[in-house]
Amino acid sequence: MAEPLVLTLSCADRPGITARVSSFLFERGGNILEAQQFNDRLSDAFFMRVEFDPGDTPRDTIRSEFAALADTFAMEWKLAQRDRPRRVMIMVSKFDHCLADLLYRWRIGELPIEPVAIVSNHPREAIGHTDTGAIPFHHLPVTRDTKAQQEARVREIAAETDAELIVLARYMQILSDAQAAHFAGRCINIHHSFLPGFKGAKPYHQAYERGVKMIGASAHYVTADLDEGPIIHQDAESIGHADTPDALVRKGRDIESRVLAEAVRLHLEERVLLNGQRTVVFRG
Amino acid sequence: MAEPLVLTLSCADRPGITARVSSFLFERGGNILEAQQFNDRLSDAFFMRVEFDPGDTPRDTIRSEFAALADTFAMEWKLAQRDRPRRVMIMVSKFDHCLADLLYRWRIGELPIEPVAIVSNHPREAIGHTDTGAIPFHHLPVTRDTKAQQEARVREIAAETDAELIVLARYMQILSDAQAAHFAGRCINIHHSFLPGFKGAKPYHQAYERGVKMIGASAHYVTADLDEGPIIHQDAESIGHADTPDALVRKGRDIESRVLAEAVRLHLEERVLLNGQRTVVFRG
Amino acid sequence: MAEPLVLTLSCADRPGITARVSSFLFERGGNILEAQQFNDRLSDAFFMRVEFDPGDTPRDTIRSEFAALADTFAMEWKLAQRDRPRRVMIMVSKFDHCLADLLYRWRIGELPIEPVAIVSNHPREAIGHTDTGAIPFHHLPVTRDTKAQQEARVREIAAETDAELIVLARYMQILSDAQAAHFAGRCINIHHSFLPGFKGAKPYHQAYERGVKMIGASAHYVTADLDEGPIIHQDAESIGHADTPDALVRKGRDIESRVLAEAVRLHLEERVLLNGQRTVVFRG
Amino acid sequence: MAEPLVLTLSCADRPGITARVSSFLFERGGNILEAQQFNDRLSDAFFMRVEFDPGDTPRDTIRSEFAALADTFAMEWKLAQRDRPRRVMIMVSKFDHCLADLLYRWRIGELPIEPVAIVSNHPREAIGHTDTGAIPFHHLPVTRDTKAQQEARVREIAAETDAELIVLARYMQILSDAQAAHFAGRCINIHHSFLPGFKGAKPYHQAYERGVKMIGASAHYVTADLDEGPIIHQDAESIGHADTPDALVRKGRDIESRVLAEAVRLHLEERVLLNGQRTVVFRG
Repeated sequence: MAEPLVLTLSCADRPGITARVSSFLFERGGNILEAQQFNDRLSDAFFMRVEFDPGDTPRDTIRSEFAALADTFAMEWKLAQRDRPRRVMIMVSKFDHCLADLLYRWRIGELPIEPVAIVSNHPREAIGHTDTGAIPFHHLPVTRDTKAQQEARVREIAAETDAELIVLARYMQILSDAQAAHFAGRCINIHHSFLPGFKGAKPYHQAYERGVKMIGASAHYVTADLDEGPIIHQDAESIGHADTPDALVRKGRDIESRVLAEAVRLHLEERVLLNGQRTVVFRG
Repeated sequence: MAEPLVLTLSCADRPGITARVSSFLFERGGNILEAQQFNDRLSDAFFMRVEFDPGDTPRDTIRSEFAALADTFAMEWKLAQRDRPRRVMIMVSKFDHCLADLLYRWRIGELPIEPVAIVSNHPREAIGHTDTGAIPFHHLPVTRDTKAQQEARVREIAAETDAELIVLARYMQILSDAQAAHFAGRCINIHHSFLPGFKGAKPYHQAYERGVKMIGASAHYVTADLDEGPIIHQDAESIGHADTPDALVRKGRDIESRVLAEAVRLHLEERVLLNGQRTVVFRG
Repeated sequence: MAEPLVLTLSCADRPGITARVSSFLFERGGNILEAQQFNDRLSDAFFMRVEFDPGDTPRDTIRSEFAALADTFAMEWKLAQRDRPRRVMIMVSKFDHCLADLLYRWRIGELPIEPVAIVSNHPREAIGHTDTGAIPFHHLPVTRDTKAQQEARVREIAAETDAELIVLARYMQILSDAQAAHFAGRCINIHHSFLPGFKGAKPYHQAYERGVKMIGASAHYVTADLDEGPIIHQDAESIGHADTPDALVRKGRDIESRVLAEAVRLHLEERVLLNGQRTVVFRG
Repeated sequence: MAEPLVLTLSCADRPGITARVSSFLFERGGNILEAQQFNDRLSDAFFMRVEFDPGDTPRDTIRSEFAALADTFAMEWKLAQRDRPRRVMIMVSKFDHCLADLLYRWRIGELPIEPVAIVSNHPREAIGHTDTGAIPFHHLPVTRDTKAQQEARVREIAAETDAELIVLARYMQILSDAQAAHFAGRCINIHHSFLPGFKGAKPYHQAYERGVKMIGASAHYVTADLDEGPIIHQDAESIGHADTPDALVRKGRDIESRVLAEAVRLHLEERVLLNGQRTVVFRG
């Protein structure tokens, strides 16, 4: 088998897209390994993900020839190598459970990532009990006055390392609108709440005060409005009256870790397509 | 075994409450069948529920003698018969899945209720496919101008039927503050959303627009602020990008029915105690 | 829009199937509304479900012309009308929560069924609290000696009513191997257990004895080996030490009702394809 | 506040136990912080857990004086320090996700443990990507011929380190009956299956073959019959037809890690009492 590719695309829905795309691949010797499509009848939009073995046709040939077809349908599209690890920059503050979880999944080969940088507004000692190995650690403290420079430095590191994905793994700083725009579509945040239930700070304390019976977490793309970006994945669990805010924080760690890891996996496998403020998620 | 009783109480926490209450029951020949307590260390409040066989001591004796002990601790308390069906008034609008569900549970003996009235702002035909049997049905239409009279009539029916619990089973009218106050602590609403996520009207459409990946429902006591009453029970389920608002409404029906039924059961079994804007729920 | 159709098919996987099928539909003016495929790489089998608007091409034309394509790939396939209610025979014994649930979903238009018969080994009075309306009720008691005749009568009723689906809604009789074979692929059972956890009789009591912390239910196609048919849907819930067998039975009713209803919906929408002893389930 | 204690007890149920126990504590200046009881009406057994501040009464005084009360009721009982970390020996084979998870929870102070030994039948390199810090690692390979000696050495290490709890964190060796008996009540295993669904080897592959729609994991006390010990905690998740055995293994890792960690937490907090082959679990 040749190196598998993943084609993702979206466009206005009209008859024949599936036929044209699948015929395009078949005519070039491609063999579909997995395919999903979604016809959004409410917005008349079409979304597709195809994982395929390109056979003898070189990737660049497929790319250049598909461009013409894509033009016909005014598609947004992407052709990616399925098995190439993605270069990932992870940002963290003092709570490193999501970081530790991502690193473990990387080390055992579960998450196809190559961590190229860890950035924190706190010094390395703040997460002293986690083994970050040889991954470069950048301590970039931030104050109101230095935020612009700090964010510029973050962009530099992302550029220098060719980071394809930025993961905010409980990075407790709000990105500026410009920074959010710069990383648009390739920056995932874990919001430690079941959005839109409790936005803003200390959501577990808010949840306790309100007396809810479930808590959750939300992984979403970062946009200028931090708590309003397109949601990729959410999960929730039951809680009870005896759960103190501290207990909610403890339970929340588990939910946050697994929701973020799942969102990162879905993104890396090119399974998440944007549909306005919503997402289309093609699970396997 | 004598007829089992349920004692529920709350007061400021201090040493010796459990000892005094359990000794009180033991000295009168009572035998505890089930007991729970909750020491709320954040508010220094104490909550207890005891289900017991009173042996040979008459219920009235226990009630009058316990009053003295309750005074000592400045308790709020209640002594109830465990197995006596509660008289329940159910209010409904056009969607009757919660009503149908409650009636089925009543008919097979699962819910210990005696439905004494069904009140709707729509005529009987609106829920024509549900068999309400011999339960009196009251069609009480409501407009802005007639709301006061309509609510007065609802209170009359509740009084005439000795209704102990009012269940808003998808009753799509907001109670006036006065009405909410009148039924305080004995009126349960099912909010067709995972509070506080989407308050107000059409929460499933809001959820769709926001692109969340889970929906839920919340059963809560009715207070003047309709979406802010103490929550008794919540549940949620995963949804996907292909779920239209109509699909969310369909999935929501199942969640709403079972969340409301569970909240009603917990309330009827005297398992729900108020703790400010929060609830203590003693599951069996 | 013409009347939507659903095409389902399975065959050995090989390159070009998607291209051929989608081109076939496009060339005849068909417009895909929803499509899913599954390439089972472990068994090299291919499964597809396409919901489409056939445009001006008559259904019979599509059917006859697709037959040729299907032959090329040695497909098993089916072309169905999406919105035509399916004729359903429901079998029940003494516990009618699943029956009541299915009938409610039918009455409010949620489940696209036309109930053509209710068959029970108990008399109508056994389910006296459920309104079966005008649906013919057949009391067919069964003993070891009369089982063959009773099953023959069940087949007759199914034939006379053109029942397309037989739902065993807590029908507590084991079908003979011959009967199971006769209804193969169109008979769904709800097993009141999380298969394969507790096969056989009284699974909730078995679960209690074993001290498990979750219970569930399984909807599956009926085969000669009753507890081993292909599973369509399962769900489970947490339980605790205080849950008696009776409480498990109560909690089980809710799980059973919703698991069976979901399986019936999936089947009726042609979303379930057989893959040996397993199923492929194309959710919307 | 003095150092909090936890009293757990079980005995035949009879009137007055709660009164006697709570009065005992009150008379000695004890202040209850949390208390639960369970009257098992099916077996007429009584279970209780009380977390309390002993005030000025020394722990040893409480212990010796309670012994007399315990005798009266023929109780099995234990008096433990709530906040003292428990000495834990962790056994592992090649898959170390549960080990890594437990160590992370220990390092951030979530789990009140003191890891005193890691024992593996594989060399340290097998779990090379996990930082075990200064915890002694014992490589104890085992073959059929050396099993007796290996188990003796495990017992020695447990004795030398005063291990109070032995956690089988995906230790893929079956303990001999004698070894299981030796560690009875203080050895927890994570079974990578939703017991009793798939006992024995390769449960995820069994689950795949059977085509189930949910997988789960079970944490239980080890007994001579490995898959039949009293279950402490279970959880499950939905899977689909596209999940290969490898995907099930991946999803299983998450479930296993959190189910085992929760069971260990419940055990360490003295929240799990044995009730024959079942457990009573007093959640907070």
